[in-house]
Amino acid sequence: MSWTYEAPLDHMRFVLEHVLDAPTHWKACAAFADLDLDTADAVLQEAARFASEVLQPLNAVGDVEGCVRDTEGRVRTPQGFPAAYQAFVAGGWPALPCTPEWGGQGLPLLLDAALREMLDACNHGWNMYPDLLHGAYETIKAHASEALKARYLPRIVSGEWLAAMALTEPQAGSDLGLLRTRAEPQADGSLRISGNKIFISGGEHDLTDNIVHLVLCRLPDAPAGTKGLSLALVPKVLPDGSRNTLFCDGVEKKMGIKASATCAMRYEGATGWLIGEPHRGLAAMFLMMNSARLHVGLQGLGHQEMAAQNARRYAAERVQMGRAIAEHPAVRLLLDRLEVMAQSQRVLAYRAALALDLAEHHGDGAVREREKRFAALLTPIVKAFCTHQGFHGPAAALGVWGGYGYVHEYGIEQTVRDARIAMIYEGTNEIQAIDLAQRKLLADGGTTAFELLDALSAELASGDPLRDFVDASRTHLRDWLEHARQDSARLLDSADDLLHGMAHTLLAWAVGRMASAAHRLPDAAAARQRALTGAFVRQAVPMGRLHWERALAAAAPA
Amino acid sequence: MSWTYEAPLDHMRFVLEHVLDAPTHWKACAAFADLDLDTADAVLQEAARFASEVLQPLNAVGDVEGCVRDTEGRVRTPQGFPAAYQAFVAGGWPALPCTPEWGGQGLPLLLDAALREMLDACNHGWNMYPDLLHGAYETIKAHASEALKARYLPRIVSGEWLAAMALTEPQAGSDLGLLRTRAEPQADGSLRISGNKIFISGGEHDLTDNIVHLVLCRLPDAPAGTKGLSLALVPKVLPDGSRNTLFCDGVEKKMGIKASATCAMRYEGATGWLIGEPHRGLAAMFLMMNSARLHVGLQGLGHQEMAAQNARRYAAERVQMGRAIAEHPAVRLLLDRLEVMAQSQRVLAYRAALALDLAEHHGDGAVREREKRFAALLTPIVKAFCTHQGFHGPAAALGVWGGYGYVHEYGIEQTVRDARIAMIYEGTNEIQAIDLAQRKLLADGGTTAFELLDALSAELASGDPLRDFVDASRTHLRDWLEHARQDSARLLDSADDLLHGMAHTLLAWAVGRMASAAHRLPDAAAARQRALTGAFVRQAVPMGRLHWERALAAAAPA
Repeated sequence: MSWTYEAPLDHMRFVLEHVLDAPTHWKACAAFADLDLDTADAVLQEAARFASEVLQPLNAVGDVEGCVRDTEGRVRTPQGFPAAYQAFVAGGWPALPCTPEWGGQGLPLLLDAALREMLDACNHGWNMYPDLLHGAYETIKAHASEALKARYLPRIVSGEWLAAMALTEPQAGSDLGLLRTRAEPQADGSLRISGNKIFISGGEHDLTDNIVHLVLCRLPDAPAGTKGLSLALVPKVLPDGSRNTLFCDGVEKKMGIKASATCAMRYEGATGWLIGEPHRGLAAMFLMMNSARLHVGLQGLGHQEMAAQNARRYAAERVQMGRAIAEHPAVRLLLDRLEVMAQSQRVLAYRAALALDLAEHHGDGAVREREKRFAALLTPIVKAFCTHQGFHGPAAALGVWGGYGYVHEYGIEQTVRDARIAMIYEGTNEIQAIDLAQRKLLADGGTTAFELLDALSAELASGDPLRDFVDASRTHLRDWLEHARQDSARLLDSADDLLHGMAHTLLAWAVGRMASAAHRLPDAAAARQRALTGAFVRQAVPMGRLHWERALAAAAPA
Repeated sequence: MSWTYEAPLDHMRFVLEHVLDAPTHWKACAAFADLDLDTADAVLQEAARFASEVLQPLNAVGDVEGCVRDTEGRVRTPQGFPAAYQAFVAGGWPALPCTPEWGGQGLPLLLDAALREMLDACNHGWNMYPDLLHGAYETIKAHASEALKARYLPRIVSGEWLAAMALTEPQAGSDLGLLRTRAEPQADGSLRISGNKIFISGGEHDLTDNIVHLVLCRLPDAPAGTKGLSLALVPKVLPDGSRNTLFCDGVEKKMGIKASATCAMRYEGATGWLIGEPHRGLAAMFLMMNSARLHVGLQGLGHQEMAAQNARRYAAERVQMGRAIAEHPAVRLLLDRLEVMAQSQRVLAYRAALALDLAEHHGDGAVREREKRFAALLTPIVKAFCTHQGFHGPAAALGVWGGYGYVHEYGIEQTVRDARIAMIYEGTNEIQAIDLAQRKLLADGGTTAFELLDALSAELASGDPLRDFVDASRTHLRDWLEHARQDSARLLDSADDLLHGMAHTLLAWAVGRMASAAHRLPDAAAARQRALTGAFVRQAVPMGRLHWERALAAAAPA
């Protein structure tokens, strides 16, 4: 059984049409008024073809070859990577969710999410390069000067140039207040940037001629801490065609995503330009945080889908003790869990993408405001939970192959290695949990969360055990807020379990919604959906209750 | 912070002396009557020095270099591996638990368990080679002819020759009934062995001149299935000094333990000799199953200890947001969990080793009989749970390093990769769960388990929440047996949760025992033990309850 990808297009369409009712939402947005499901389907079919036919065959070779840095600091990506990127650009994929004003296709982030899920499933390492484009696009579009926008946005939207986000320094991991990279203003209005950055994904490579670095740095008069950070645009190649003075000093040897060049970068008086206000660099970057974190969550979803479908195919063919191992109870339980977890996280992640679309484009200002809050609430949950499962799902799936799972050529062990990083970057999962607890729940007293849970509960039939679980979670959340208000130390102690409790609650809604829409599926698929609902109720709901129980115990007064 | 090993000698001594009361047990065994704690301590200190000074420095290089097979089928292990093995032999370590009759030191398996935990913690890949010796020793000692024993045992006990267990074939993973390798009896009483085996750890290497293969095969008149398997001893070098016709056709590219040569072997009319009765090969191999599975459990324990102590040291030094990350709540909770899990599994695994010692050497036949049953009951739990945590503990610990954890040079990502295999080999964890449910619990109606739980509960103070959990588990087990008797399909559906429920119950006893013995520790250590007890009660006990809940629900009539 070879490692292959069959894009879950049927399930994607089911989610868009019957679970999220996307067409109705699109009609309420002027930007998407002409979009219909058949068009969306056609886009996703093309994306699926690109992902499975172009990217997936490069996944294993990318892992084996990795990136090679030569003595002059040039980085060569694995065989086939540059050509695949050219095909990606030629297909117009980078521009999919960008505004037509700058050359984009103006399609919803919801469709972009489905695209990214497929790219990540097939080749996480390769997708690291274009995955950074959208964040750079949003940041430049919202904060850069008109001159910078005119110079950089069209080529970023088209994908002709790629981007890199240069935040981390050796002494500063999650603590950006410790950043030291300096920016000295020049007479011509430019900046001279000097400093060292580490863990810069796509800091140097051979996919594009130019690479646009967005660098967090400090102006001479900057206050200490995160309030003194500015953001600079620092291109590898300057407008006059000369090479800027930024250099790749090394490429990390990593556990996975070896095809992604994780660079140590040196900016040696490199020329750049300020984006946004002085000392307001972090605010400029936070703007793109929601979509960037959603993208990372989609990596976790992609890995789960890939592991689940390959495990299912292998288990159907491999015979032990006289029957296909898919029929062995432990394997059957695992396959069901993998599938229902991937499906329900697809609903959740796509709901977050829909919220971002509605927050920007819905005709009703009240809806825009509400969806903005929903997106902010959902983002840390999607990022942390989908990447947590993005690692643990494949790690469990590996066992389906037995000893073969541990051998490189079967594919699953690479998925496990690739998936682990997504729990760390773009804000560690522990930071997501604190963000959820403090800024998304405590800060508004739970208003947004209750609004969301009430809306979700109302979509489930009364008497449905999944609705009961959602309603019980509402009570747990109320109790947790009561405790957490009184003691911030206990709040932090409970944050991880709280996030997992909330995630299970949202997934319960997703599973319940899929169950109630299942009558629209062909008979066999509807029966399968019922089996998966049962698996979720038996395996995942008790786990959700456990997380709530621990979160409450940790937050409760001693 | 570099990756280093400080053997947990203090905790090992605490477990031997105050938790398991080993000296009292030794006095009841003629074979160990002269052994005291100071001698044991001296042995473990020497072992710790060997592990941390000789093996640990070879761990990363072993991963990077891996094993290389040349065009003639010879396998070269990583630099330093043969010399380390020579030092191991010179130190007399292979012989530690072997009987003096064949040149061994006659020390308890309990001390051998501590030795192996340290070897595994420092270098799992290297330890794969000698780890197979003891199983071969036990099998040959119990089942081979006197002539074979005289020829092979002394050199296996000394470590001059290493061994390999050749079971798996491509079509037969966990299903040994599908094995096809043929054995044709010859006029001189030898066998001619022909067939192909895969996943043969240490099937070929450059550590010793000779390698003794124990090969599962079929005689011409063999019945089909597992009842037709015979066991043959097939040396790489024959007694007359000539090379036997067995060949390494390939070495697997694996996720981890890359320093361990996982060989595809071809036996081409190779000369061998029957061990034990014809068609009774599996019975002969099952004899060594308990200690072999315990060894694998110890690999999981070693990985957890290594991850826990390195994470603790790193977290104490790394400052973010103005304080050491060890003080950040999510990190503190994780460090506590990693430590108490490693400690309590040490108690559990060592208790299993003690049971094997008492089953063989105790002066009282009733104790021998009881401990034999205890060992059989504990074995699948130790194998499955310690390896499950042996992967998941380090996988969680990796996050303490943030992005650095994903980079090879920090050490933890190798531990995660190395650890995954232990969940699969020597009987997958799913098979352990079925073994526990069917053969260790249902087969005797729970008699042994109730006897063990009653004895453990009696060691805890009444009112201790850990004792309450053990007692509640006894009730859960009774209910589970009630259900499981009625429906074997539901029994299988509940097996994994049952094993984890039982494991948490046993760990609760271990934690309770450590807590009650903590007053014998220095003040700071006693306070730390109290904190760890609290962490276990808050984090692990609810998880144990969850597993019992799911096990009961899965086993209950619909």
